[in-house]
Amino acid sequence: MSQTVDRAPRTPATQPAPPVVDVAALGQHLMGRWADIRRVSRAVAARPEMKRVEGLSMADHRARVLDQLGLLVKEGAVHKAFPKSVGGLEDAGGNIAQFEELVLADPSLQIKAGVQWGLFGSAVMHLGTEEHHTKWLPGIMSLEIPGAFAMTETGHGSDVSAVGTTATYDEATHEFVIDTPFRAAWKDYLGNAALHGEAAVVFAQLITKGVNHGVHAFYVPIRDKKKNFLPGVGGEDDGLKGGLNGIDNGRLHFTGVRVPRTNLLNKYGDVAEDGTYSSPIASPGRRFFTMLGTLVQGRVSLDGAATVVSKLALTIAISYGSQRRQFTAASDTEEEVILDYQRHQRRLLPRLAETYAMSFAHDVFLDKFDDVFSGAHDTDADRQDLETLAAALKPLSTWAALDILQEAREACGGNGFLVENRLTSLRADMDIYATFEGDNNVLLQLVAKRLLTDYSRKFATADAGAMAAFVAEQVGDAAINRTGLRRLGQSIVDWGSTARSVGYIRDTDSQRQLLTDRVQTMVAEIAARLRPASKLPKMEAAQLFNSNQNALIEAARAHGELLQWEAFTDAVERIEDDGTRQVLTWLRDLFGLGLIEKNAAWYLIHGRISTQRAQAITSYIDDRLLPRLREHALPLVAAFEFTPEHIGAPIALGAEKERQDEAMEYYRAQRESGTAPIAEKAPAKAVRSR
Amino acid sequence: MSQTVDRAPRTPATQPAPPVVDVAALGQHLMGRWADIRRVSRAVAARPEMKRVEGLSMADHRARVLDQLGLLVKEGAVHKAFPKSVGGLEDAGGNIAQFEELVLADPSLQIKAGVQWGLFGSAVMHLGTEEHHTKWLPGIMSLEIPGAFAMTETGHGSDVSAVGTTATYDEATHEFVIDTPFRAAWKDYLGNAALHGEAAVVFAQLITKGVNHGVHAFYVPIRDKKKNFLPGVGGEDDGLKGGLNGIDNGRLHFTGVRVPRTNLLNKYGDVAEDGTYSSPIASPGRRFFTMLGTLVQGRVSLDGAATVVSKLALTIAISYGSQRRQFTAASDTEEEVILDYQRHQRRLLPRLAETYAMSFAHDVFLDKFDDVFSGAHDTDADRQDLETLAAALKPLSTWAALDILQEAREACGGNGFLVENRLTSLRADMDIYATFEGDNNVLLQLVAKRLLTDYSRKFATADAGAMAAFVAEQVGDAAINRTGLRRLGQSIVDWGSTARSVGYIRDTDSQRQLLTDRVQTMVAEIAARLRPASKLPKMEAAQLFNSNQNALIEAARAHGELLQWEAFTDAVERIEDDGTRQVLTWLRDLFGLGLIEKNAAWYLIHGRISTQRAQAITSYIDDRLLPRLREHALPLVAAFEFTPEHIGAPIALGAEKERQDEAMEYYRAQRESGTAPIAEKAPAKAVRSR
Repeated sequence: MSQTVDRAPRTPATQPAPPVVDVAALGQHLMGRWADIRRVSRAVAARPEMKRVEGLSMADHRARVLDQLGLLVKEGAVHKAFPKSVGGLEDAGGNIAQFEELVLADPSLQIKAGVQWGLFGSAVMHLGTEEHHTKWLPGIMSLEIPGAFAMTETGHGSDVSAVGTTATYDEATHEFVIDTPFRAAWKDYLGNAALHGEAAVVFAQLITKGVNHGVHAFYVPIRDKKKNFLPGVGGEDDGLKGGLNGIDNGRLHFTGVRVPRTNLLNKYGDVAEDGTYSSPIASPGRRFFTMLGTLVQGRVSLDGAATVVSKLALTIAISYGSQRRQFTAASDTEEEVILDYQRHQRRLLPRLAETYAMSFAHDVFLDKFDDVFSGAHDTDADRQDLETLAAALKPLSTWAALDILQEAREACGGNGFLVENRLTSLRADMDIYATFEGDNNVLLQLVAKRLLTDYSRKFATADAGAMAAFVAEQVGDAAINRTGLRRLGQSIVDWGSTARSVGYIRDTDSQRQLLTDRVQTMVAEIAARLRPASKLPKMEAAQLFNSNQNALIEAARAHGELLQWEAFTDAVERIEDDGTRQVLTWLRDLFGLGLIEKNAAWYLIHGRISTQRAQAITSYIDDRLLPRLREHALPLVAAFEFTPEHIGAPIALGAEKERQDEAMEYYRAQRESGTAPIAEKAPAKAVRSR
Repeated sequence: MSQTVDRAPRTPATQPAPPVVDVAALGQHLMGRWADIRRVSRAVAARPEMKRVEGLSMADHRARVLDQLGLLVKEGAVHKAFPKSVGGLEDAGGNIAQFEELVLADPSLQIKAGVQWGLFGSAVMHLGTEEHHTKWLPGIMSLEIPGAFAMTETGHGSDVSAVGTTATYDEATHEFVIDTPFRAAWKDYLGNAALHGEAAVVFAQLITKGVNHGVHAFYVPIRDKKKNFLPGVGGEDDGLKGGLNGIDNGRLHFTGVRVPRTNLLNKYGDVAEDGTYSSPIASPGRRFFTMLGTLVQGRVSLDGAATVVSKLALTIAISYGSQRRQFTAASDTEEEVILDYQRHQRRLLPRLAETYAMSFAHDVFLDKFDDVFSGAHDTDADRQDLETLAAALKPLSTWAALDILQEAREACGGNGFLVENRLTSLRADMDIYATFEGDNNVLLQLVAKRLLTDYSRKFATADAGAMAAFVAEQVGDAAINRTGLRRLGQSIVDWGSTARSVGYIRDTDSQRQLLTDRVQTMVAEIAARLRPASKLPKMEAAQLFNSNQNALIEAARAHGELLQWEAFTDAVERIEDDGTRQVLTWLRDLFGLGLIEKNAAWYLIHGRISTQRAQAITSYIDDRLLPRLREHALPLVAAFEFTPEHIGAPIALGAEKERQDEAMEYYRAQRESGTAPIAEKAPAKAVRSR
């Protein structure tokens, strides 16, 4: 129970003063490297004309979001990512930081902006060359050319390499002929395709001289200025979706649509006039993944948006939970504040810890993204590391956002179900984040395959020293406590011992060891089971991989969680204010110990912790961390710096407290005046007298 | 991988013929005791005029659902639950069975019908007496009197006993004066209140002669026939909600509203003309809970509706998953069916097992409900058992429905996000089911308190025999295998032993023992920790309970899961067809072993299973149960007997297969005709030649 009401403070002699969070400093820390850009973007997001209006028809919502994109153009907010040669700023990281904050206004706005500039424009920029930039980027940036990113098909989302759309070179006319030869090949779920788009970057199998060179990107005009489809182009509206209805998603199909040879976005592959194919990348597989890799910014911004939304959801739920009261317990007249209930703390505070982890991990991710796309560090290895980071973090944050929104909604009861309190619309919009820009389960498999590849490169023979170095490389961070890692091989035996003090588990190095060891062991075990695969026939090899698919995904998840934990830990170490650093350390402990608790069965099975220590973790969370952190819950969400315009939800802006105060005053006055009725005590007469 | 494509069947000599599910017989089994009523209701739900039309404005959706209620009246579908004295059938169970199937048409229809007849009408029936029945039930049944169930207030949902609305008796005029003295006391979230309702059953503190006798129910007219509020009555529209927008939820407030003394629904408490209170139940607390207990049918129908919706969601996801293909693995030309992926099986098949458990548990629940409300077995103990059953099952099924809908949506990718495929709208509508008719976390605490009460009655001294009997009583089912329970005390030691064969864990008795033991042990541990409470001052006692709140809820969840498992097991034993019973046994094993796996840490910590057995459970699920059950996934959802009209989702009605077939035919014909392009193999020229 909260000890802040009605009790005399304990004398200093009995207890140290509790730490205090410096909200402003913490807020600055959370804003990170592009704090100024984020704050400007948030101010834009707070404007009435940018906000989501609930209850609009689909047509009106779509029109409103298109207008909002126009406002962003007027703001000059669009230029950050684009090349200086066309008036851009080439600020890759700043651009993402700016756009992900727009989710606060309306996820449809964030995503439609992402489609136009982050996918359509980005594809022209990264897959095209100078002539394409000059010809099309200005119109894309100004919104004169609304466009679609036509990669996904009804039949192929995850396996882009297998799309059915073809672009066949006609040597006679020097044109590519674009075709969608069957229904499943129709491009689908494309923002801007149903209404507004006048062009599309179409991903198709490039066929020339009877050879299929794999998927390439083509700039294809699709509508004239009157929004009529051009000859050979057709489409459908996807209709109502579960959310994001401010975006005109639709389908496109192509029947003999001809585009000039030079409409091939030819940075990674080209076709000469005579139809000869050439590419700076010899391997078709590598070429394809290199092209896809340039489009990773979508995943970066989704990770960021999911984090922003999670922060907002918890701000609403924790604000409300600090005001809402229900049931008397310690007092006869005053009901308990619901955030004082252990269960309520269990539901919300670990999610708050997770959200802080997501936020700091996103900063690392965005840093890495900017490093690569600014050219500061953009070797193949850097790009692959960025891919892996994206594939690990995007699933965790987007799934977390959905769970956090749902938990927040339930924690706000009937109030939470009213659209005005934001949570239900956000959840409906965020649903698709788990499966677009990469299906979360597929992405985690990409991570797992990367982990296996790295493992197999290093462990032709098992070698503890090499294993430790491998682990160091995996977490990829020079700030790793070398002492901790050196102890890895030595102290595994210790974990099973019950002689260790409970305090040992709270130690940062202990958390790091346990989390790191789990990733490493899971990968090693899977690698051992998969070792026979290279000698098996195709079908048996596929079955062997399939029977390890779940384990692969869980190993990847563990890797992603470790990345989040590392980022959280590094961020905490950089906090200068003692009080803030203490509270954030507890919050980080809640995150790390929560991960260990969640996977306690694994740790027990592998002899990494004793049963006593497993129980001690749960007790420490329940009895120490949760009540402690409850006291700091409001400052911890205040540090997210959301203004009332961002929050929007009446229940998080004082409405609940107002009602509580009015009710309490009514009863207090009633008691004081002696007019309160007496509660029935004695048994009533058993006989009716009507 | 599925072995049904392109492989010769194994010869009988090497493997027994796989069992076959008798879909029709299983379907009948699932339909249960009120099969005929359910099928009639489903036929009604399938009619075009009853179906949900997506994309309607809130106003149009509300009007449509009101019309649908009128159609139900015309059908004579309303009369089942009501007394014969007013033309009803007094068929409590059949009534619920009928109305829960309506969720297939539109959850708004199911809930608004529930508000009108299951809450408003039910309150008049169960809390009122003959004169009230005669005066109001016919109009309620005919929909001439649309009405609201005015219990919840903006400030009080879970703690009904603390509502702020008062009904003060005026001895001079023989009237009750209804007041909502502050904003938090406004009745809120009431279906029928925003537009259609002309009366309400209002729950208010009954005050007479200066004594507050606690919450009672009053019949209060609120609007005239022109839908204008009557004097002293006011309200607001709740506005857009996250779902269920076919229901006009709103708020009501009362200022000096006078109703005749006889408008008190006086079955459990009465006020004479002179203001004297009387009641057949002496204790105010017991009286209040007895009144609330008569309204348990809401929870019964939510449990049923959540189960129906889960069945539909899995039908859609499994149908689609059996047609959708992505990525080649075993073959070079044919992509894998996604339900052949281990991860996809892990995501969907345990949920299918859970849904079967929910279904059979709901049948037990509905049976018990009918027993009590038909008068066949309606002692106080029976009613309390029914309350506990409701409080245990409703949370599990409503939470499961949300998780299942989300998993199904993600498993159907972009297709799943299109409203036409049903999943997103159902999820939005089902959201509130987790917190209305009892917040799930609060309900589980009610269960826990019941478990503790029963425990403390029996265990003044610890006694293994009494413990076993206690457990038997808790699961409350004569079909319990006595051998299993007798072994409970003896064989706990065995579980830690690694000498036992793996097969032992699959045994029905083994599952029962492990699941039962966990509930019992959790309750005993909490009871031990709470033992000091009765001697502590109020605040310390409250803190002690609070620090065990999470454990209490988890013990209650374990109890509910055991109830589901028992119902599943009993239902499987009643299946006559050998093949069907074999498959259902595997499905039940997946459910039971899944519960044990989920709580493996607990079992390991308490020495109930060895680490080897814990790993063996996961291997058995992954390597044996999932692939085995995948083969029966389609029959298992076919047994839900949904027609194409119920399913509605194009992706579950063959659209995906059509597209797959067309694509495959295109490529096959292309290969056959020799016109297929050759895949690029050799490195391309590194030099550009544009």
